[in-house]
Amino acid sequence: MTRLLIKQGTFVTIDEQFSVFQGWLAVENGQIAAMGEGEVPQRESESATEILDGSGLLFMPGLINTHGHAAMSLLRGMADDLVLQDWLQNHMWPTEAKFTGDDVYWGSALAAVEMIKSGTTTFVDMYDHMQRVAEVTETSGLRASLTRGVIGLCPEDVQKAKLEDAIRFAREWHGQANGRINVMISPHAPYTCPPDYILKFVEAAHELDLPMHTHMSETLAEVEQNVRDYGCRPVEHLDRLGMFSRPTLVAHAVHLNDEEIALLAERKVAVSHNPISNLKLASGVARVPDLLKAGVTVSLGTDGAASNNNLDLFQEMTTAALLHKGVSGDPTVVPAVEALRMATLYGARSLGLEGAVGQLKVGLKADIIAVNIAQAHFVPRTDYVSHLVYSGRGSDVVHVWVDGKQLLRDRQLTTLDEEKIMAEAELCYRRLRA
Amino acid sequence: MTRLLIKQGTFVTIDEQFSVFQGWLAVENGQIAAMGEGEVPQRESESATEILDGSGLLFMPGLINTHGHAAMSLLRGMADDLVLQDWLQNHMWPTEAKFTGDDVYWGSALAAVEMIKSGTTTFVDMYDHMQRVAEVTETSGLRASLTRGVIGLCPEDVQKAKLEDAIRFAREWHGQANGRINVMISPHAPYTCPPDYILKFVEAAHELDLPMHTHMSETLAEVEQNVRDYGCRPVEHLDRLGMFSRPTLVAHAVHLNDEEIALLAERKVAVSHNPISNLKLASGVARVPDLLKAGVTVSLGTDGAASNNNLDLFQEMTTAALLHKGVSGDPTVVPAVEALRMATLYGARSLGLEGAVGQLKVGLKADIIAVNIAQAHFVPRTDYVSHLVYSGRGSDVVHVWVDGKQLLRDRQLTTLDEEKIMAEAELCYRRLRA
Repeated sequence: MTRLLIKQGTFVTIDEQFSVFQGWLAVENGQIAAMGEGEVPQRESESATEILDGSGLLFMPGLINTHGHAAMSLLRGMADDLVLQDWLQNHMWPTEAKFTGDDVYWGSALAAVEMIKSGTTTFVDMYDHMQRVAEVTETSGLRASLTRGVIGLCPEDVQKAKLEDAIRFAREWHGQANGRINVMISPHAPYTCPPDYILKFVEAAHELDLPMHTHMSETLAEVEQNVRDYGCRPVEHLDRLGMFSRPTLVAHAVHLNDEEIALLAERKVAVSHNPISNLKLASGVARVPDLLKAGVTVSLGTDGAASNNNLDLFQEMTTAALLHKGVSGDPTVVPAVEALRMATLYGARSLGLEGAVGQLKVGLKADIIAVNIAQAHFVPRTDYVSHLVYSGRGSDVVHVWVDGKQLLRDRQLTTLDEEKIMAEAELCYRRLRA
Repeated sequence: MTRLLIKQGTFVTIDEQFSVFQGWLAVENGQIAAMGEGEVPQRESESATEILDGSGLLFMPGLINTHGHAAMSLLRGMADDLVLQDWLQNHMWPTEAKFTGDDVYWGSALAAVEMIKSGTTTFVDMYDHMQRVAEVTETSGLRASLTRGVIGLCPEDVQKAKLEDAIRFAREWHGQANGRINVMISPHAPYTCPPDYILKFVEAAHELDLPMHTHMSETLAEVEQNVRDYGCRPVEHLDRLGMFSRPTLVAHAVHLNDEEIALLAERKVAVSHNPISNLKLASGVARVPDLLKAGVTVSLGTDGAASNNNLDLFQEMTTAALLHKGVSGDPTVVPAVEALRMATLYGARSLGLEGAVGQLKVGLKADIIAVNIAQAHFVPRTDYVSHLVYSGRGSDVVHVWVDGKQLLRDRQLTTLDEEKIMAEAELCYRRLRA
């Protein structure tokens, strides 16, 4: 049995007291085995099989990206600064229609490289060819909540096949990779899935006892369409269809009225806030301060790299903390500590993983990242929570552990072949564009 | 005479054609001596005294930060998430009042470390103890437009002394450090300087033949105060006082009406857009798409690190490109190429340096940065302008040259002692807070 001892580090725990302290932490059997302030007790020094000097490093829970489409990394920079429908219909969808399983594999692997190197330890992925994303998850050592996102605008037999694919994926992969893979059930969105089709996903989620994930109210146009087609707004629509009888995570939730916010809070629906994607596609600005005030769990997602265009969750934290101040006119909303919780604890809560990851606590899984704070943009030592949110960036992350296994050591990946993945991803893109 | 040849690089020129090409570039005598696409001509290989393999690197003009207070890096993270007046009156001003020349020196040096390491080659600085900032500029090798920013809410004799200090600084330092230092004349803001005091600065700027710089219309409250106190809004107020008879750069310009935008365009007043600071302090969102449409030169500034909280101009580009899309609802505004011009060419234009820096062109000063594009977040090779703006970050910068002198080599500073500066800055902060 190995026991890693990190000593003389700075720790940001994101626990109830939100402590930031100088001290030590021990990892054994994939878990945080012990931790404490100040000097390392002698028994800890004696039982350690590996010791890491944490001087100049800040240790915190790994970041949790609660909405994305990893394989879309292949489309990064392919089409920007376009109106949403043009972007989707003339660029994204035609290219994605050509994606093979291999494209999904290499695109997701490219995303995994980027995520690990910017401190993400758990990611949500909604896409097609999900067994290939699961393979990447297994190989990379990342933790993931994966879901076969299904668009239902197709003939009944195709609908049926897609639903079966989603269910098969859930049965095969939920709990796999040493428990690092969880599965969610995902009708893509209310505007891409007819109501009776959504009902079948709700049914499947009950049967499999899995949470649900969907896109909701990303644009004003889709809310208006929902009202036209179904006589009510998306929140009420999904509630009527029974989706919220399952633990549900909705992505975006940009366009909400007060009643919808209240209903989301009542139904304990979690929201994945994707500020950068929402800005880039000009979808609008989600009412995050109001959601938080109402008690809704709000976490952070990058969305796919085609609408971001990176997967740096530090940047998502910064943007979330800044944007809502500027737009609301109130500089006290989404303070640094809340942005940090959104990227960690609230992410865990959104995925049913609270108490397993998202905090540094004895007994939790050792999903930990180390940030190099011996850099100019972390000086002076005033407030490390502020520094992480307002000054930090993904490239400051030097070590990453998931389940106690080190995935990044001194910015070198231990599980993935970065050079090969970049080359293969480039080839995939060239072939897709040929 | 040394002649540096960069071969097999990717170049983003930011010239009229906005070319992005694979090729080579030669630097001699502080200038871009020659450049071209494809393979290096034999005569270039022969005349080079130093050759740099540019594979995996993207070369572009150094970034230009057109508004800041470098020494405020000492206050990074000291007070966040506060209402502006509380932040200023209870935190910033009382601490800044204790700043000695040494504090300004080490705070500015800390900023210089951060700026060089994130690709900024020219910065604007408005502060007190400016000779100490000039010393940092001289030592660091950076290019700067420096200005003694004067708050005029004080007795007449103090006003007089401050004005004299600003003039003395201009006479001593304009054109120094091998021409790398330019000086501007700065009444701090219309709300901190009485009109007759501003007039004296305008007079001095004429006499010294120097441009002017000021804060303008950062908050709605200060616009309203201007109307109450002087019967007109800040743009008209400064125009009446003759400021715009000089080349002028105004910082922020968040709250403008249509007439003000038209007048700024007519008077060729340049605007330094500081999106992150404006968001963080909840000042609002500047009308950048309208300013650009009206033909106003809009560049980018970080403002001081206390309201940002870093000096990474890549992040400012990203934020500028994203924010205005989301707020306007139009995803085509501030496209990537325009954001990149704001951080380079338009910055140069704002400072009267167009034709000297801000582009890669033969005959211009060799202010060049190299970005490591052999990284996952720059894959695939779709559009490097998009990648720089939407996916890049300051930490991607590996080499920096100013006037052909290398200030950063493989992310190591060549002119500044990073360790010492971080330690001294920390000590300054401890002393200020004691």
